Amino acid sequence: MEEGSARRWVRLRHAMADRKLDALLVTHLPDVRWLCGFTGSNAALAITSRQAVLFTDSRYTTQAREEARGARVVIAKHSALKEACALLSERVRHAAFDPEQTTVTALELLRSTLPPRLRRGFFVPLKSPIVSDLRMVKDAAELAALDQAAHLGCRLFDEIIPFLQSGLTEIAVAAELEYRARSLGAEGMSFETIVASGPRSALPHGRATTARLPRNGFVTMDFGVILNGYCSDMTRTVHFGRASREERAAYDAVLEAQLAAVDAVKPGATCGEVDEAARSALRRAGFARYFTHSTGHGVGLEIHESPRIAARQEMKLQPGMAITIEPGVYLPGRFGVRIEDMVTVTATGHRVLTPVTKDWIEIHSSERRPRAKR
Amino acid sequence: MEEGSARRWVRLRHAMADRKLDALLVTHLPDVRWLCGFTGSNAALAITSRQAVLFTDSRYTTQAREEARGARVVIAKHSALKEACALLSERVRHAAFDPEQTTVTALELLRSTLPPRLRRGFFVPLKSPIVSDLRMVKDAAELAALDQAAHLGCRLFDEIIPFLQSGLTEIAVAAELEYRARSLGAEGMSFETIVASGPRSALPHGRATTARLPRNGFVTMDFGVILNGYCSDMTRTVHFGRASREERAAYDAVLEAQLAAVDAVKPGATCGEVDEAARSALRRAGFARYFTHSTGHGVGLEIHESPRIAARQEMKLQPGMAITIEPGVYLPGRFGVRIEDMVTVTATGHRVLTPVTKDWIEIHSSERRPRAKR
Repeated sequence: MEEGSARRWVRLRHAMADRKLDALLVTHLPDVRWLCGFTGSNAALAITSRQAVLFTDSRYTTQAREEARGARVVIAKHSALKEACALLSERVRHAAFDPEQTTVTALELLRSTLPPRLRRGFFVPLKSPIVSDLRMVKDAAELAALDQAAHLGCRLFDEIIPFLQSGLTEIAVAAELEYRARSLGAEGMSFETIVASGPRSALPHGRATTARLPRNGFVTMDFGVILNGYCSDMTRTVHFGRASREERAAYDAVLEAQLAAVDAVKPGATCGEVDEAARSALRRAGFARYFTHSTGHGVGLEIHESPRIAARQEMKLQPGMAITIEPGVYLPGRFGVRIEDMVTVTATGHRVLTPVTKDWIEIHSSERRPRAKR
Repeated sequence: MEEGSARRWVRLRHAMADRKLDALLVTHLPDVRWLCGFTGSNAALAITSRQAVLFTDSRYTTQAREEARGARVVIAKHSALKEACALLSERVRHAAFDPEQTTVTALELLRSTLPPRLRRGFFVPLKSPIVSDLRMVKDAAELAALDQAAHLGCRLFDEIIPFLQSGLTEIAVAAELEYRARSLGAEGMSFETIVASGPRSALPHGRATTARLPRNGFVTMDFGVILNGYCSDMTRTVHFGRASREERAAYDAVLEAQLAAVDAVKPGATCGEVDEAARSALRRAGFARYFTHSTGHGVGLEIHESPRIAARQEMKLQPGMAITIEPGVYLPGRFGVRIEDMVTVTATGHRVLTPVTKDWIEIHSSERRPRAKR
């Protein structure tokens, strides 16, 4: 990652020069981590064209010195943020900050650190995010990390299938997934695991509850791990017992929409076009009005990053971007289906990072399910 | 919780009247949940003296109608936030917002929804947070929820002790804790589990890694669960093998500091006094310079809430507040010790929610440790 970090600093300095920025204050922790590798929970990076200084506090003295690359470390006596501002105000005439990652209170605090004559105009909001824009296009080390995280996710799916049986609680399934994730090296889950069974599958964000897997109905599992800081995200929906014709039609429609959207992923395609590929497939199948969210999102150090894969998004896909493709249909009170892969944009098209089967899986509770191995 | 929710609305309306606020926009999700019970990931509450309207999106149609109490639900077509602003601008002349929970970009977005004549001055930043201030003092339902979460945490500690043995990875310990938490009904962990072993115990925020529990040295475990939305938080430090005199002295000093700070918790005491109780005990023992963080924090729907238990904090404790007391000492590269309880302020003093032993625990790897039950 050493080389990767050096290249990220070069990319940032180029982007700062392009935008004619003298200096930048970075406080969003994933941005800090991406730039200099520091993983602590309190950090402010003061960046000028000549130097970068990471301010943190005394809880992180050892860790910051071990982790930080491309930035000098200063342990702040009182406030990392204030000391970062003080340094900038001594060195440059203007410093940019990311207004999407800065609260109104924090901006007041930044300004309060300045001498009165500088308070108006020293801190300038970025017109568009700079670090998170750079972070959209992943480098080789990041793509490898995402691949490993996604691969772990796939392995969990393969392992959880034989564990599923009607009567188990959703929470028991989530617990098993999460235990295996941890045991295989994940730092944790990238979001609260969704296990939504029976009529609860119609809830797009159905957190695992004490509801029990049905004898007859869908179970949607949407989960992700964090591995070496990078997030995975995938969803599969399986059916217990024999499905009705409508359930099967819904599944087939979602699968077709998902495949169409994945197929639309290539350099130069807009995010809106990818969304429309899924949406129009569902429209043809008569399910479009049950597809109530966007098609996907960027994924990396954060589970939700840019770009948004949604209607009318004009941003063009570029090689190195990593996104999810996750259409779903939700019939309130009845059932829902969602299928999600992680996909990267390659030089010529795309690569699916989660190549686990999306074929119809039907689980019959009369079968003796093998117990999970421990 | 029905009655609890009604009382929270009454408390909010009184606080709004005290501050002469016509209207309030609430977007911070834990604030939304506390007020109206809605647990989705996208919400804006528009509150006037007469009504409250919860705006969310179509992913949450069913869930919002099931959960929301004291607020009418509107499913926004495009943006929950914009529709909340539009409603407020039609009903009132000024609306307050929480600048600590609103980004600079979000404030621009709020203002952009207004007719040009209203843009200056319609949205007014709160001088101090209103909902999170109310949330500091927990009601009976919340205290019961915190008690249950803390109780689950204690049970996990009791169960993990026989599981510990030198050679296990920190991650294996975390995985076991988290699996048991889930199996016992937790929605998840309230923060990334800390298992810091041997010299890593000197890292106050030592996330579980592949490092192995030592034959001789400390292991600090700091973890919490989320149960029915409420967070627990506790830390215990155990020792493998025979301790050096200095290790034992450090442990005894931290324990004395922790007991002194817990003892200082009562209505009317300032947060700074509680912090000082811990700090002065460590000063007497000669360890104060290794205590590099604050003594504690509020805990509730969020793992870190108001008040801060830190030096010079003038806020006075009130009955119903729930805080952590967690002094520690960290000798870089050598070892660290931290001991943490959750404590509530009662009418006459305090109650410890995590009454698990804080006595010295020494684990000898020569003993045959019983395997964990499954």
